[in-house]
Amino acid sequence: MHVDDALSRLDRFEIETPAWGYADTGTRFGKFLQPAAARTIEEKIEDAATVHAFTGCCPRMATHVLWDFPEGVAPAQVAELALQEGIRIGSINPNLFQDQIYKYGSAASPNEKAREAADAHVERSIQIARETGSNVLSLWFADGTNYPAQDDLIRRKRAMASALHQWHDAMPEGMTLLVEYKPFEPAFYHSDIADWGMAYTFAQQAGARAKVLVDTGHHLPGANIEHIVAFLLDEGMLGGFHFNDRKYGDDDLTIGSIDPYAVFRIFAQIVLADEVHGIDTRSIAYMIDQSHNLKPKIEAMVQTAVTAQELYLKALLIPAARLLEAQASTDIVGAEEIYREAFYRHVRGPLAEWRRHRGHEASPLEAYRTSGIENERAKIRSDRRAAEGYTGGGSYA
Amino acid sequence: MHVDDALSRLDRFEIETPAWGYADTGTRFGKFLQPAAARTIEEKIEDAATVHAFTGCCPRMATHVLWDFPEGVAPAQVAELALQEGIRIGSINPNLFQDQIYKYGSAASPNEKAREAADAHVERSIQIARETGSNVLSLWFADGTNYPAQDDLIRRKRAMASALHQWHDAMPEGMTLLVEYKPFEPAFYHSDIADWGMAYTFAQQAGARAKVLVDTGHHLPGANIEHIVAFLLDEGMLGGFHFNDRKYGDDDLTIGSIDPYAVFRIFAQIVLADEVHGIDTRSIAYMIDQSHNLKPKIEAMVQTAVTAQELYLKALLIPAARLLEAQASTDIVGAEEIYREAFYRHVRGPLAEWRRHRGHEASPLEAYRTSGIENERAKIRSDRRAAEGYTGGGSYA
Amino acid sequence: MHVDDALSRLDRFEIETPAWGYADTGTRFGKFLQPAAARTIEEKIEDAATVHAFTGCCPRMATHVLWDFPEGVAPAQVAELALQEGIRIGSINPNLFQDQIYKYGSAASPNEKAREAADAHVERSIQIARETGSNVLSLWFADGTNYPAQDDLIRRKRAMASALHQWHDAMPEGMTLLVEYKPFEPAFYHSDIADWGMAYTFAQQAGARAKVLVDTGHHLPGANIEHIVAFLLDEGMLGGFHFNDRKYGDDDLTIGSIDPYAVFRIFAQIVLADEVHGIDTRSIAYMIDQSHNLKPKIEAMVQTAVTAQELYLKALLIPAARLLEAQASTDIVGAEEIYREAFYRHVRGPLAEWRRHRGHEASPLEAYRTSGIENERAKIRSDRRAAEGYTGGGSYA
Amino acid sequence: MHVDDALSRLDRFEIETPAWGYADTGTRFGKFLQPAAARTIEEKIEDAATVHAFTGCCPRMATHVLWDFPEGVAPAQVAELALQEGIRIGSINPNLFQDQIYKYGSAASPNEKAREAADAHVERSIQIARETGSNVLSLWFADGTNYPAQDDLIRRKRAMASALHQWHDAMPEGMTLLVEYKPFEPAFYHSDIADWGMAYTFAQQAGARAKVLVDTGHHLPGANIEHIVAFLLDEGMLGGFHFNDRKYGDDDLTIGSIDPYAVFRIFAQIVLADEVHGIDTRSIAYMIDQSHNLKPKIEAMVQTAVTAQELYLKALLIPAARLLEAQASTDIVGAEEIYREAFYRHVRGPLAEWRRHRGHEASPLEAYRTSGIENERAKIRSDRRAAEGYTGGGSYA
Repeated sequence: MHVDDALSRLDRFEIETPAWGYADTGTRFGKFLQPAAARTIEEKIEDAATVHAFTGCCPRMATHVLWDFPEGVAPAQVAELALQEGIRIGSINPNLFQDQIYKYGSAASPNEKAREAADAHVERSIQIARETGSNVLSLWFADGTNYPAQDDLIRRKRAMASALHQWHDAMPEGMTLLVEYKPFEPAFYHSDIADWGMAYTFAQQAGARAKVLVDTGHHLPGANIEHIVAFLLDEGMLGGFHFNDRKYGDDDLTIGSIDPYAVFRIFAQIVLADEVHGIDTRSIAYMIDQSHNLKPKIEAMVQTAVTAQELYLKALLIPAARLLEAQASTDIVGAEEIYREAFYRHVRGPLAEWRRHRGHEASPLEAYRTSGIENERAKIRSDRRAAEGYTGGGSYA
Repeated sequence: MHVDDALSRLDRFEIETPAWGYADTGTRFGKFLQPAAARTIEEKIEDAATVHAFTGCCPRMATHVLWDFPEGVAPAQVAELALQEGIRIGSINPNLFQDQIYKYGSAASPNEKAREAADAHVERSIQIARETGSNVLSLWFADGTNYPAQDDLIRRKRAMASALHQWHDAMPEGMTLLVEYKPFEPAFYHSDIADWGMAYTFAQQAGARAKVLVDTGHHLPGANIEHIVAFLLDEGMLGGFHFNDRKYGDDDLTIGSIDPYAVFRIFAQIVLADEVHGIDTRSIAYMIDQSHNLKPKIEAMVQTAVTAQELYLKALLIPAARLLEAQASTDIVGAEEIYREAFYRHVRGPLAEWRRHRGHEASPLEAYRTSGIENERAKIRSDRRAAEGYTGGGSYA
Repeated sequence: MHVDDALSRLDRFEIETPAWGYADTGTRFGKFLQPAAARTIEEKIEDAATVHAFTGCCPRMATHVLWDFPEGVAPAQVAELALQEGIRIGSINPNLFQDQIYKYGSAASPNEKAREAADAHVERSIQIARETGSNVLSLWFADGTNYPAQDDLIRRKRAMASALHQWHDAMPEGMTLLVEYKPFEPAFYHSDIADWGMAYTFAQQAGARAKVLVDTGHHLPGANIEHIVAFLLDEGMLGGFHFNDRKYGDDDLTIGSIDPYAVFRIFAQIVLADEVHGIDTRSIAYMIDQSHNLKPKIEAMVQTAVTAQELYLKALLIPAARLLEAQASTDIVGAEEIYREAFYRHVRGPLAEWRRHRGHEASPLEAYRTSGIENERAKIRSDRRAAEGYTGGGSYA
Repeated sequence: MHVDDALSRLDRFEIETPAWGYADTGTRFGKFLQPAAARTIEEKIEDAATVHAFTGCCPRMATHVLWDFPEGVAPAQVAELALQEGIRIGSINPNLFQDQIYKYGSAASPNEKAREAADAHVERSIQIARETGSNVLSLWFADGTNYPAQDDLIRRKRAMASALHQWHDAMPEGMTLLVEYKPFEPAFYHSDIADWGMAYTFAQQAGARAKVLVDTGHHLPGANIEHIVAFLLDEGMLGGFHFNDRKYGDDDLTIGSIDPYAVFRIFAQIVLADEVHGIDTRSIAYMIDQSHNLKPKIEAMVQTAVTAQELYLKALLIPAARLLEAQASTDIVGAEEIYREAFYRHVRGPLAEWRRHRGHEASPLEAYRTSGIENERAKIRSDRRAAEGYTGGGSYA
């Protein structure tokens, strides 16, 4: 694709940032607290709006029902607050894992009360979606078992299918249900939705508005993610992405930090599905789900957004016709070199130009890093925490 | 289940052995030749019949079209020969990878001639199935690509789906199409049928008589195979197994040699699907697909058959009602101990009794190892090879 | 080995339980709290003593300096308390990861203050070891980086080597330094002591009393742990074990719950190193390091101790002379069947007898599960927590 | 480093190509034959010389004793032939796996005759090295076992150590012994030299001229190769590399085809070890070991050489001082962006200039692909094969 056409495609490339990505997170061994980390929904909106202000491509913030809409908060007010800051509420993410009731799972739990709690929470989540104007309900389950024999896998499968079907039908028209999969963690023997095949089957059985959500960190070692993406695209079942990178498990690193060529190849499948096969890829939801324990939150989010733009643009620059020709003549090296040329293409110049033209920062990451905002926010928020006597933290054992 | 009931289930537990498992095989670095290895279809039938004679549970031999039915051989004669030796021809396995035409794949190749060759070969395979009285067509594809960009993944997917659909419809009634999956090797970037989700989708789209074949060695590290099995069982899509064990890739070791508890858990899912959920598991095809480069061929086959019987019997001995109770009360340790008791249950005594009662060897492996057959066959076949001037072998580069 | 000799070996097989294994632990997504979980050092000692009372083979409790010896507690008093309950203080485990100062590592941190804090903490740990009569200092480091380029790997390596050397020399005579390795988590790009080869090199450079600690859950997929164990044994560098089982990452499940045959093979290497090669294996420290989020704490600990005894006993029953003979004649199936016979050998009967003879419970797990202790302790400790207003828990974000 | 300095470093960056990389190779499922593939040592030298002629950086060809120096060939003549074509003989690679005698291993085999055969073959290899003027003896072992219990791991370890020590001492002064490691394949239970830690220990025990050879495809999933490289560099034990890329097992794909950023990071460790820590990296042997089943042989070799040059040059362009500063101030994002800038730096222009200046092709890959050599050689060699009646090929079973 010509660079101008490619850039005009970029106009429509929007990336949702996650509210929880602005808060302190960590590993089971503890959290390293950041003075500028957000704790309240107001602070999260402030940060998400900052990311959008610097990048121009992050107009929505995914929210987490449990953490962002505690009982008592009016969803419409949160949506209003977001609008005032210049962003909108994006996908609604129920939390079906933190409450003690979910010890043995949520929708698949053998405990009826757990399943009821899950029902109630998802119903409330749908209501929040309505009230905030969100049209995506995004479901990740920690459901699974830790030991062989712990539970009946088929009973759990049927309970999960039934819940998803019910929730699908409870959604208002125009809302999409995204079903996420993950092979392990926090369940270490089996996870009820362990891979894309299970998510696909559950989504198909749930109803027409259910699609699969691909979290780039949720695969076993070696999985060819771009192949899964292509497969789902052709089946009309790719709902969206949670972007992050990984080297080992679900490491939740910033995208492209470990294997940028793999990210490029995922984008390439999307671009080629459209260009070569006419598959409609416009409704794919691009969302960030990273948990940068060490990198400053906003900085990491801007870095990911910019990286995603760059890698997507490189994929758009693949000359599809030439590629098809090389493929048809089984010229493996020739076809590969077309990919590599696009991948190594220098896009920062044209991107800066395009950003300037649209009234954004030419170099969002650099601009943010030199803006002084991080320090400023750290000062204000530390003082606020101190005044409230908040300590955070926690211990593994 | 009570041990007598369990043993009566074992009466119906038949395991198919593979013709190619009696021949010399190896790794890409070479084959270590065994003097007693079979080379002709006659020798393979002789060996498979020996395994059945010693174990009493291996009445069928899977055949490989390219190697076992070369042009000129009449399939009905082969079937007749098998019958004379006391066995039958089992699943028919087309070969869609060895011919030079398949360099870029078979059904998914960009090369029309390769796709036509695949069509012709599968049609011939179906004909062989008819003529030999086999009712299982078992398809494994080496199709895939070795480098990013090498080919168009969606075009390949559609070509594969189309071929499977066509072949499904070409089968006579009563014949089953098994679709096998494998994440990698010999394709090292993407495999067209990479996981159970893809095999499941292709099988569903092919037609009602297509099912998924689970080769226990064809998964990425950590995959929970018994979960996949349970999922497929509940979907009515589990066609059968290729038994082998692995530690790294598709190592093709004898079953239970690396992780016997995992094999037990697979059988447990099958037993429980039947007992707890009333799922019909009788048509599952149990087949061995091992490639024992070092172990003597017949010995290894007997060892696998006996191991499978023992582990299946242990799974049958799980007290399902007590297990359900422990699961319902979320007694994780209690449920797990039920599994473990069954797994460590001493079954060799009852099994020997049961075998004797059916007129078989009480200890098939020991009986074979002390029978002198191995040496005898080694002598005859070495002489035969020498007379023919056969050398075997080959070099990696 | 004859079963009587094997059982007399079991007399010397002692397993250390970890203080943190009695407390509430969890994953990054949260902790599921147990009413009977221990929170104070007194409660932990009470639980460890209970495990020893039921099993007779867990006379020591590993302690964690940060959590068990907060400033103000006199180590000698803790040791005294343990003695009164019938156990002793085992290995001393410094904590070099929880404090905010360790954000970028401890001994390998680029931050001098972090390195100084680590020094001070380890010095204090050595002092605690002296005062509690412990002779094992066990070091696990969370040190590592999360992103390429984050730090200078060679500088970190040298800093780590220097710290270990210094700490080794600071130990009193008769104390052993155990160096643990782990490929990832919580560091997701590189871990400073990532594998046994690095731990081995660091231990050799630290001094003669430094050995390698093998945590059975700290390996990449497919690693042959028993091979590493054999290698270290022959090098005289195997210090001890942290027992747990895993399917994916460092899952910290109870030992033998996923792959019991692999545990048996580890024990087999230890037994054979002694019997066949005369390697002294008596000083190997066997320690449990499991984090059973769902299983009741004491129950899980008893289960692991009993499982380890059973699997070790099975390994002791391998007839070494017959095995060597089979190996020397390259009888692969014969040698394997010797392993398998020992693995499936029924040992619960003789073990029960042996336990009774020593004045212990014949079936420790069953005895504990029916003792009513769990409920009793749950009652007392819940009340205690309620009185203190303790809530535990915590949120991922 | 400034681009001019970096390019002057490139003057010394030589990459050895492997003789076997010009021949037909494959997987265990078969070889796809290429008409232009080399079969004789003369043809291999011709091809290696062509690669050097186009790239200017591949002046040596690694040879494989069994395949390239069959009995009767005079090594000095081969060396002379190479010189006439403009290249030299590089590392000498004994073959200790193809002969039937090595069924149970070579140096570690329980079979004395196998160990003797290995001794004799390595001695002959050292003699060949002398006669061809090579100073690198490169050892890869297929030694290992396929089943638990198959052999005594400690006996094998000692036999391996003893052989390596003996062979080290048999080498003339100035010759280096490279010890390669590999976790699996063709041994599927344990490999005698399974990881870098074992290779390091064996090399240290062999003698001062033994070093570790890192094959980039010989690691378990997730291994951080650049960390191993940095560790070995600091220990003075990094002997060299076998370059290739992988996604699953030892896939032997062309370097940078799957994860180019990882290759860049390996080079970065080498560059930084030198620049920051003054470690002498000049004697590292860079060798290609790829087995491009599908890509045309010479084309693939040129592609790899050019890719290695580009990625090494990018690593050289890392501004070390700025990086250290970012690292010292724990500016993770800043440090990472320095890596990324270097990685995405456009180097093809300066490289073309530098090549032209040295009298080489500006774009070696393009030049070769348009040269017509491939077709020409295919024609000549097909005719030659036809005349000789050669068929190649072979069947898996």
